[in-house]
Amino acid sequence: MKTLIKNVLIIPMTERDLSLQGDIGIDGTRIAFVGSADKSFVPDTVLDGTGMIAMPSLVNAHTHLSMELMRNYKDTCANLQDWLGEIFPIEDKLTASDIRIVSDLGIAELIKGGTTTFADMYFFAHETGKAVVESGVRACLGLTLFGDVEDSRRRVQERGPLMEAVAAQSNGRIRVDIAPHAIYTCSTATYRYAHDYAKANKTAMHTHLSETDKEVQDSISRFNRTPGDYLASIGCFDDIRTYLAHCVHSTDAELSRFTAYDIGIVHNPTSNCKLASGIAPIAKIRQAGIPLALGTDGASSNNNLNLIEEMHIASLLCTVSTGNTMALTPYDTVRMATAGGAEVLGLDDRIGTLEAGKDADLILVDTKKSHMTPLNNPFSALVFSAQASDVDTVFCQGRLLMQNRRLTTIEETEAMRKTELCWKDILTRA
Amino acid sequence: MKTLIKNVLIIPMTERDLSLQGDIGIDGTRIAFVGSADKSFVPDTVLDGTGMIAMPSLVNAHTHLSMELMRNYKDTCANLQDWLGEIFPIEDKLTASDIRIVSDLGIAELIKGGTTTFADMYFFAHETGKAVVESGVRACLGLTLFGDVEDSRRRVQERGPLMEAVAAQSNGRIRVDIAPHAIYTCSTATYRYAHDYAKANKTAMHTHLSETDKEVQDSISRFNRTPGDYLASIGCFDDIRTYLAHCVHSTDAELSRFTAYDIGIVHNPTSNCKLASGIAPIAKIRQAGIPLALGTDGASSNNNLNLIEEMHIASLLCTVSTGNTMALTPYDTVRMATAGGAEVLGLDDRIGTLEAGKDADLILVDTKKSHMTPLNNPFSALVFSAQASDVDTVFCQGRLLMQNRRLTTIEETEAMRKTELCWKDILTRA
Repeated sequence: MKTLIKNVLIIPMTERDLSLQGDIGIDGTRIAFVGSADKSFVPDTVLDGTGMIAMPSLVNAHTHLSMELMRNYKDTCANLQDWLGEIFPIEDKLTASDIRIVSDLGIAELIKGGTTTFADMYFFAHETGKAVVESGVRACLGLTLFGDVEDSRRRVQERGPLMEAVAAQSNGRIRVDIAPHAIYTCSTATYRYAHDYAKANKTAMHTHLSETDKEVQDSISRFNRTPGDYLASIGCFDDIRTYLAHCVHSTDAELSRFTAYDIGIVHNPTSNCKLASGIAPIAKIRQAGIPLALGTDGASSNNNLNLIEEMHIASLLCTVSTGNTMALTPYDTVRMATAGGAEVLGLDDRIGTLEAGKDADLILVDTKKSHMTPLNNPFSALVFSAQASDVDTVFCQGRLLMQNRRLTTIEETEAMRKTELCWKDILTRA
Repeated sequence: MKTLIKNVLIIPMTERDLSLQGDIGIDGTRIAFVGSADKSFVPDTVLDGTGMIAMPSLVNAHTHLSMELMRNYKDTCANLQDWLGEIFPIEDKLTASDIRIVSDLGIAELIKGGTTTFADMYFFAHETGKAVVESGVRACLGLTLFGDVEDSRRRVQERGPLMEAVAAQSNGRIRVDIAPHAIYTCSTATYRYAHDYAKANKTAMHTHLSETDKEVQDSISRFNRTPGDYLASIGCFDDIRTYLAHCVHSTDAELSRFTAYDIGIVHNPTSNCKLASGIAPIAKIRQAGIPLALGTDGASSNNNLNLIEEMHIASLLCTVSTGNTMALTPYDTVRMATAGGAEVLGLDDRIGTLEAGKDADLILVDTKKSHMTPLNNPFSALVFSAQASDVDTVFCQGRLLMQNRRLTTIEETEAMRKTELCWKDILTRA
C-alpha cells in the first residue's frame, strides 16, 4: 500500500529542514520520501494536503491511560498526596475488564489529538496492550511496581508474560518497560529489582521523580539524599535507559549528575500546575542537555490527553517562570512533543521525525480555520493557536488511524458509552 | 420567534442553582424560562440538548480584535516593549478597510469559541462595529486614545460620531467606551479628558494598567506613584465605571484602594505569560472583592481568541502560583468568563447568567466527546477538558449565530480568504 500526501507544508523536525512545501510518500509501514516525489513512486491513494501541516505524530511520554475513568473527579484536592488518597481506593476496585474498556476510550482521545505513541504506567497493562494492538497505535507499556520486592517479583511473574505476549502481536509497536511507581511507594529493593529487570531485558525504566517538594523533603529525611541522588546512589541508573516523569523539584546538582546516565525527563506541566506541585525547571534541563519529552500525566490530573494544549501550557509556563521569551521557542516546544519524546523513550531510530526510512507515524493538522488565520509561523500556530480538534489525519506505522476526524480503528461512540457504564458501575462497587 | 432547548444540563451561573437538568425557553431576544417549561410556551423551534451543557455565552473582556492580522507574527520578542516596537509600525499602515475585513474573521473565531460579548480597544472601531451589527454579537467598543489631549480630542471628534452611529444600529448590543491606551502612551491630560468623557456620556473607561514591572517602575519614576495610585490621584476613577486590563503588578495597597471605586479587573493570563509580563494576583483580587473578568488580549499576543483555553490557563496559573488548589475553583473560573465578565463591563443586568428576563446570550457545549467522557463535574470538564471546538450552538440576544459548528451570520471561509489577502498586502506596504 502506497500513499501520497500532496502539496503539504512539512515540518519534518529534522536538523536539515525547518519547513518545506512538498509531498510525502508512505510505502507500507515506512516513509518513502519527504519533499519531492520519486517518479517511480506510484501511489494507491493520494491525499490532498493543501492548507495542512504535516508533522511527526505526537509522543505522550508519561500517562496513565486508564485514569480517563477518573476524569473531572475529585478535582479540588489540596495536593498530590491528598488526591492520591482519593484515587487509590477507586483503583483498588478496578478490574482487567475495566481497563480494556477505558483503554479504547483513551486511545481514541490520543489519536483525535494527534498522538500515536504513549508511555503508560498502570495496572492490567496487558489489557491496554490489547487495545494498542487493535487500534494500531504505539506504546511503551510500564510493568508497574509498588511496595516491596516480593510484591514486585509477583507482579513481574504474573503480568510480565501477559504483557510480552501482547507485545509479540504488535509488529514492534509495543515495548514492555519496567515501571516502579515512585520512591514513596516502592522500596529500595524494588528499585534495584526494577533496574536489574531493565538491564536483563534490555528495556527502559519509567518512574515518577521529584514531583513535589514533600517527596524531596521526605527523601532527604529518609535517605539523606534528594530523590535523584538516592536512585543514583543505589545504582538504579547504571547501564540502562531511564525516563523520569516530572522532576519539578530536581536540583541543579541532580540535573548535572543525570547527564552521566542515559536519562530523559518527561515534562507534565498541566498536572504539575493542577496539583500545585510546581513548575519544572525545563530551561535548566535543556541547558544541561538532558533529552526532554512532554506528557499529559493521567486524565484525572489534567484533565485530558491533549498534547496540543500541553505544548501551549509548557511554552507559557517556561516563559513566565524564566522571564525569558526565548527559553523555549515554539520550535523547541514542538520538538519536545515529537522528536524529543522519541529520544526520551529511545524510539528515535524509528519515529519522531519525518525522514525516508523511518516508520510512517505522522499527522496532518488543518490550518484552514479562523483561529489559525493568518498562519504566519507554523510552529507558533501549533503551539499558540491550534486545538487538538485541528488534527485531521493520523498515520501510525503507515496505517491510517484517522481521516477527516473520523477514527478508522476504534468505535468512538461505543468506547464512550461503555466507559460511562463502567465508571457508573465502579462507583457502586463496595 | 420562540425556541425551546430540551433536556439539557444547565449551569445558569446564578446564586440559586449550581446545575440542573431541564429545558430553556427563548422568546424573541430574551430568556423566557430556565428549568421547567411553562405550558403556555409554544415553541417555533425545538433543539435537543441531550449530552450538552447550556451556559451563558462567554465574555471576552479585553481584546484587540483586529490584531488577528498579526497572529503568530514576531512571536519571540523579549518583552512587551520590544514587541510593541515591532507591532506599532505595522499598525501605522492599517486602513479602515483592513479593520472591516479582519473584524469578520475575529468575530467568527469568537462565536466558534462560544464568546458573544467582547470589549475591544483598537483603531477604526466603527468598522469593527459594522461587523458586530451584521454578525449579531455584542461589544463594548473602545474609542481608543493615544498621546496628548489635543490628539485625543481630535480622535473623539472624528471617531466618536461614527461609533455612535453604528451603535445606534445595534439594538443595544454596542456600547461606546472611552479607552485611553496606557499610562506610558497617554498624557495625564488625556486620562483626565477620558474620565470626563466617560462621566459626561455615562459610559465606562477601558485601559491597560500595570501590565509589566517596567510600567510600574517608570510610573514611580515619573509620577512618584504606582500606576493605579497615579490614576486615582488625578481623579480618573471618580464617579465612573472603569475596567482595567492586566493589573499583573498591582500592589496590595492599590487593590485595596480600587474597592472604593466602581472598578473591575480583566485577567489576561495567556498574554501575560507569553510576553513574560508575569502572573496577575487574581487570588488577591478576588479576596479584595474586586469584580474579575477574563480576556484573551489580542490574538497577536495569545495567539487566539479562545476563552475555553483561557479558563484552563487561568486556573492552572492561579493554582501553581498560590500553591492553593482552592484559590480559584472550576466554578470560580467559569464565573470569571461569564457572570464576572458581565459585571466588570456593567452588563450584568442583561447578560452573564441564564435567568428568565435576561437577554438570551447562551451557548450549548457538546460533551459527547472522548475527551469529555466521563463528564463527572461539568465545571471541571469545561475548565480542564473542553476545547473551543466543543461549543456546538451559540445564541446572542436570542439570535442563533451558530448551530452544529456552522456560523449563520458570517461567511467564515470568505473571512479567512479576505484576511489572508489583506495581511499579504499590508506586508508589502511601504
